[in-house]
Amino acid sequence: MPKSREIHLVQRPDGAPRPENFALVERDVGDAADGEVLVQNLYMSVDPAMRPRLTAGQALDEAMMGGALGRVVQSKHEGFAVGDLVSNRLGFREYFTSDGKGLSKLTPDPELPLSVHMHALGGTGFTAYGGLLHIGQIKDGEQVFVSTAGGAVGSVAAQIAKLKGCYVVGSTGSDDKAAWLRDEVGLDAVINYKTQPIRQALEEATPKGLDVYFDNVGGDHLEAALRRMNTLGRIPVCGFISGYNSGHSNVSNLSNIIYARVTLRGFVAPDFMHLWDDFKRDMAGWLKAGKIKYQETVMEGVAAAPAALIALMAGENSGKMLVKLAD
Amino acid sequence: MPKSREIHLVQRPDGAPRPENFALVERDVGDAADGEVLVQNLYMSVDPAMRPRLTAGQALDEAMMGGALGRVVQSKHEGFAVGDLVSNRLGFREYFTSDGKGLSKLTPDPELPLSVHMHALGGTGFTAYGGLLHIGQIKDGEQVFVSTAGGAVGSVAAQIAKLKGCYVVGSTGSDDKAAWLRDEVGLDAVINYKTQPIRQALEEATPKGLDVYFDNVGGDHLEAALRRMNTLGRIPVCGFISGYNSGHSNVSNLSNIIYARVTLRGFVAPDFMHLWDDFKRDMAGWLKAGKIKYQETVMEGVAAAPAALIALMAGENSGKMLVKLAD
Repeated sequence: MPKSREIHLVQRPDGAPRPENFALVERDVGDAADGEVLVQNLYMSVDPAMRPRLTAGQALDEAMMGGALGRVVQSKHEGFAVGDLVSNRLGFREYFTSDGKGLSKLTPDPELPLSVHMHALGGTGFTAYGGLLHIGQIKDGEQVFVSTAGGAVGSVAAQIAKLKGCYVVGSTGSDDKAAWLRDEVGLDAVINYKTQPIRQALEEATPKGLDVYFDNVGGDHLEAALRRMNTLGRIPVCGFISGYNSGHSNVSNLSNIIYARVTLRGFVAPDFMHLWDDFKRDMAGWLKAGKIKYQETVMEGVAAAPAALIALMAGENSGKMLVKLAD
Repeated sequence: MPKSREIHLVQRPDGAPRPENFALVERDVGDAADGEVLVQNLYMSVDPAMRPRLTAGQALDEAMMGGALGRVVQSKHEGFAVGDLVSNRLGFREYFTSDGKGLSKLTPDPELPLSVHMHALGGTGFTAYGGLLHIGQIKDGEQVFVSTAGGAVGSVAAQIAKLKGCYVVGSTGSDDKAAWLRDEVGLDAVINYKTQPIRQALEEATPKGLDVYFDNVGGDHLEAALRRMNTLGRIPVCGFISGYNSGHSNVSNLSNIIYARVTLRGFVAPDFMHLWDDFKRDMAGWLKAGKIKYQETVMEGVAAAPAALIALMAGENSGKMLVKLAD
């Protein structure tokens, strides 16, 4: 009978998450019963959207939910064989048993690293793809701003916009990430919002205004973008990381959406699942052709998961934050 | 040669507009030259959207722009005859000459009062119609909230929603207007935001949440509505009167649009001009059938125009605020 180590939320953070909000708990996991599989997680995803769930949504004293990729190690379920790879929402734990609900089989692309299915070719890449093309209705050659452009979603959104022939400005929080975006990714302008005032820097970087702002931040970034929106501009709102720790994020100039007739639209990836096959085909092609670049920050072992989430919220990752649990 | 009295903006208001921001100026208006008409304004429209233009947009020491309905009193233009009624943007003055640009001929509906063409059957009614049906994509039987429901746009929006079989909550700023909305218009719930806390009152009035919020206010009304939005809800943003005097209007919980996947969309009526004929047909029918009720607050003479605008911004009007200049 395998033992699983898992991360429990034991205390809701007041502000930024801290190590004492979490506990590492070891428990016995039963073998697979009839109709069940036993899954070993290989990678778990660490995402900004986890932060609001620490305040409300994630139960206390239970293993945290989160995206993960696992391998079936025992099967008494006719739909799964030992060795199958399964995407699941039961991250932050090493092993679990399941009746198969909530598991989806993944056929990895043999020409690409497995971990890519956790970001550019997985949920975060799909969020960027649908958010920009479907929610943002981006058109060739438009003026585009992407915040957290060094992150897992932002970096893909910025590059899809470049592939559409757009002028793309990205914001990020370190000189290293800014250099990667400028020199490797080839964005037209990059703002380090920790060293440059975002409002003034964005004004200087967008002489033709903005048609689309892909928002992962809210707050001061959204205010700065609202000042620059062109007529009939669109703001797909993917995240509001500026408010995740405090619970609020003030925006003082929302009235600008009237004069420029701007559409702000909140979204989550399930809103455009009909694009999934298009996404997989397009993104696999772009990745193999080297047209979409990515970075990963990989920490090792389930015990590192709280530190990974804390680092992510502090912007210390480059690209996708992953915890690797097993080969 | 007729003399025209007109209202100039002489000083930009700091906060609410005050009488000393305006001056009444008399000047000679030339007779119509070849290719011109001389127009006498009969009614001028006083609208909340004028307030932002006092801060930026309206030139100082010139007659203020604004919607008006006039009659051609001299014509040397082949497209216009003496007696033609013309909608124009040259309000806040008694007479003007024009080469015809920016004038559109109005054929009044003989079964309806002329003034109705200045509101329910004119620009404000059209703003409500397109804002709700086209921008708000309202569906039969939805849960709807309309702010400034006693105003020219809001009262029409609220009644169109009722005609679509929706559950409709309105907010207004006086007990008189609240009584009219409840007893004459038949809204399902009415909030007097000056005597009831909007957040709590809206929560109590919307047990099934909100699918559409027709926003004329921004600020605390928008915050209250964002807390109540159902999944895939829509917020057509017509005005932000809460911020017009101060120049800003804070919204602290905009991140709610992500979880409920809400669309906020700023608009102006020219965005849906293709609906104009449908609007005229539908609205004339509704008005004649008594299905759309309206109120007017009419002040007399161009000298009263500043007081009318000041009263409008203080919410002292009921329904459409008009200044009548001539019969």
